[in-house]
Amino acid sequence: MSLTLRFLGTAASRPTVERNVSSIAVMREGETLLVDCGEGTQRQMMRYGISFALNDIFFTHMHTDHVLGVIGLTRTLQLQGRTAALRLWGPRGSARALRQATAFGGDRLTFPIEVLEVEPGTPIARDEYAILPYEVEHPGSVAVGYAIVEPERRGRFNPDLARELGVPEGPLWGQLHRGRTITLDDGRTVDPATLVGPTRPGRTVVITGDTRPCAATVDVAKGADLLVHEATFADDEADRARETGHSTAREAAQVARVAEVRRLALTHISARYSRDARELEAQARQLFPECAVVRDGTEIEVPYREI
Amino acid sequence: MSLTLRFLGTAASRPTVERNVSSIAVMREGETLLVDCGEGTQRQMMRYGISFALNDIFFTHMHTDHVLGVIGLTRTLQLQGRTAALRLWGPRGSARALRQATAFGGDRLTFPIEVLEVEPGTPIARDEYAILPYEVEHPGSVAVGYAIVEPERRGRFNPDLARELGVPEGPLWGQLHRGRTITLDDGRTVDPATLVGPTRPGRTVVITGDTRPCAATVDVAKGADLLVHEATFADDEADRARETGHSTAREAAQVARVAEVRRLALTHISARYSRDARELEAQARQLFPECAVVRDGTEIEVPYREI
Repeated sequence: MSLTLRFLGTAASRPTVERNVSSIAVMREGETLLVDCGEGTQRQMMRYGISFALNDIFFTHMHTDHVLGVIGLTRTLQLQGRTAALRLWGPRGSARALRQATAFGGDRLTFPIEVLEVEPGTPIARDEYAILPYEVEHPGSVAVGYAIVEPERRGRFNPDLARELGVPEGPLWGQLHRGRTITLDDGRTVDPATLVGPTRPGRTVVITGDTRPCAATVDVAKGADLLVHEATFADDEADRARETGHSTAREAAQVARVAEVRRLALTHISARYSRDARELEAQARQLFPECAVVRDGTEIEVPYREI
Repeated sequence: MSLTLRFLGTAASRPTVERNVSSIAVMREGETLLVDCGEGTQRQMMRYGISFALNDIFFTHMHTDHVLGVIGLTRTLQLQGRTAALRLWGPRGSARALRQATAFGGDRLTFPIEVLEVEPGTPIARDEYAILPYEVEHPGSVAVGYAIVEPERRGRFNPDLARELGVPEGPLWGQLHRGRTITLDDGRTVDPATLVGPTRPGRTVVITGDTRPCAATVDVAKGADLLVHEATFADDEADRARETGHSTAREAAQVARVAEVRRLALTHISARYSRDARELEAQARQLFPECAVVRDGTEIEVPYREI
């Protein structure tokens, strides 16, 4: 099961020559979804080969630099003859703005748009995983982050031992793997615990959107495989970060450290660091070495943990 | 007096990897204005070094791919601390959509936006030239093109002859050049016609926006220095051009030919020709050799005619 993030826009507030405004494509085993969709996202999708056959866009909050691209994207989906519904998810109170966006200019789309407001703490069940919205701290707007949470995977099945015990390869192996005790033709029963190892963790990816460093992110990201945290400013603008409801790179690293995540990706970079973000990276790495400032087009694969 | 166009977006309907949606920057002697402002225009301005100190955006019509970028652009102007008014000009009935755009998301801008509807045939006076909106044919929407029209320039002043006639260099030369008869100290009068040649034409640039080939463009562009005509399709989609209210490259060339313009620039190119528009160019050149399909970033200088 592949799980990959592709960063489509990594700039704060406004685009620069190097960085477009916020959007992240999350691709899980052939399924694509977007988290945020700033102006120009559709063109970034084309640039980086992201599928337009997506059904869900999750918005962290309603600031223009996270939302505006949905207007052009839906118009292009219409030009492509889309008929399937597109679901737009946003925090409490976002439905009006999202409906306003998709109705912009009085165009009537030929495919349905479903606008849904998420409830922080209530997971949205997907086929094989869940998306958990959680409340972040971005004063002045209702804002959420999203955790992509896979369930635990079954333990490893031991085929050699199965053969040794005379369990014939076939449906019985699957039943054992799924945790059922089976009875062989000779009357012996085999307990799955004999042949199946302990369950293995699924993967967790947390995307904060715009936020101050906060306990909620630490809670949700506890032990996560990847934390994507905003890092708008460097140390020398820590006051400004506080005033504008954003984080410094060091503050993001502190969250990652306390949450004991495996990897930290820093995004939502102030124009000042658009070309050269080494200062941000260096300050974050003092607290959390496994981190990098991402660029537009950066792809991060999230592997299963080897256990 | 420099007069330069820079093409910021040359795609029809939707962006491609190579081409953004419609916008043209017109720069005349330090002044910048935009004609149309599709999604992502602000980033194209950054890319091509176009000044954000602009006061006017002229919209040809209200289709999303010509308008959407004004939302993000005004947000960025706000971030830059703008206080000066920005004027948005559009055809009859466009004011509502333009106001909707600038109020998008409930943001209140810190600088005033003036929305003005233009009257086809009524020139908008600028300091040293005029912008003439004219009605084009883009069925299904109220659409205008814009002509940038400079007045005639004074004729050439002949300094050698002035000296020969004993007219001292200084204010008298200026008075003669501006058409006044002067009297010299010795009582002789000098007629400006003696020293000043015939008036010379100013420059005219016509930008059609989206349109069928039409007589109105021929009228306005008669003898123009540059005609920027949309050319969405090639010959094999002539029917589609008619159905969707657009032009083929050949039709655009026919307009240029009948109008006897000096140069033709083709833009608003269907995604099909986004990478390679040689087919469009070849078909247009059969009728009008002085033409080229522009790309994003193409700059066209419009010189005065040598007379």
